[in-house]
Amino acid sequence: MRRIVLGLGISLDGYIARPDGSVDFLFMPKDYSMAPFFKTVDVAIMGRKTLEAGLRLGKTDTIATPGLTCYVFSHTLPPGERSGATVVNDSPKSFVQFLRKRKGKNIWHMGGGELAVEFLKDDLIDELYIGIVPKLIGEGLPLFPTGFPERHFRLLENKSFSQSLISLKYERLRKKSKKS
Amino acid sequence: MRRIVLGLGISLDGYIARPDGSVDFLFMPKDYSMAPFFKTVDVAIMGRKTLEAGLRLGKTDTIATPGLTCYVFSHTLPPGERSGATVVNDSPKSFVQFLRKRKGKNIWHMGGGELAVEFLKDDLIDELYIGIVPKLIGEGLPLFPTGFPERHFRLLENKSFSQSLISLKYERLRKKSKKS
Repeated sequence: MRRIVLGLGISLDGYIARPDGSVDFLFMPKDYSMAPFFKTVDVAIMGRKTLEAGLRLGKTDTIATPGLTCYVFSHTLPPGERSGATVVNDSPKSFVQFLRKRKGKNIWHMGGGELAVEFLKDDLIDELYIGIVPKLIGEGLPLFPTGFPERHFRLLENKSFSQSLISLKYERLRKKSKKS
Repeated sequence: MRRIVLGLGISLDGYIARPDGSVDFLFMPKDYSMAPFFKTVDVAIMGRKTLEAGLRLGKTDTIATPGLTCYVFSHTLPPGERSGATVVNDSPKSFVQFLRKRKGKNIWHMGGGELAVEFLKDDLIDELYIGIVPKLIGEGLPLFPTGFPERHFRLLENKSFSQSLISLKYERLRKKSKKS
């Protein structure tokens, strides 16, 4: 089954962005590559604010990316095509059911925190793929805001890279494995 | 010079305790030991709430530990001996100056988050030693509440243990190394 992978870079204190949405504190060292990960996904989903931050940061009006179908969850935008993505205002649960019925690779949940909480509430996250930069930034937008029940995971991978970046992969441990 | 090491176990979403102070989600796998760390410290410092939670959880009236001199920071308790520790209501900065003038091993900052912020504000943390359990608990007391300026670190050690525990050691990168 296609898996939903929440994949993001964060500060050591758990922020995906500064309070104003900027992500200047994140970096990618030369010995680290997202390419192997990109090969495993063909759909990206994100919240509206993440889309808008991405467009602003990229100084572009589209996030269209070859090989990646992008969906944006929004409670306010009208459904349909927009900025190289498809705006969805379905519930995460039913949209994920729809995606999982279609054949394809894994699904990349790019954030942000508000959408992550909605997905965690409905237990839709199958894997976490988190890069941690060695900085406490002190304030910002958390990857995991409050508002979802406890979820347990199993470590799949833990790697260290240059410039003190670490990369962690976890998979969700669900009830059948006797963990909540 | 004696180093101040902020050393704690946290959930994957960065909490040192649940909202009620309980730490039942933390665990220590068989292949992990704090013994090598304990050999490097001879002073423990903590906030009043951490002391009180420790006494409550341990169902004890003292935190006296052989080989470890304990200090408790409090804005409300009178200074002096209490529960196997010495209550201090000096500022973290001047108390750390006092400790650093005395010979000894490193100093373990046991938490909690509120005292960690005070120390981070004054840039008194030299090392981080963080164990991360593979659980998102959804809410609780954060290790790094907001309220301090950005601080950069260098990864010293990154180890994986059984039951998906990881242990990270970082050291503070200060201005002389061209990092803030």
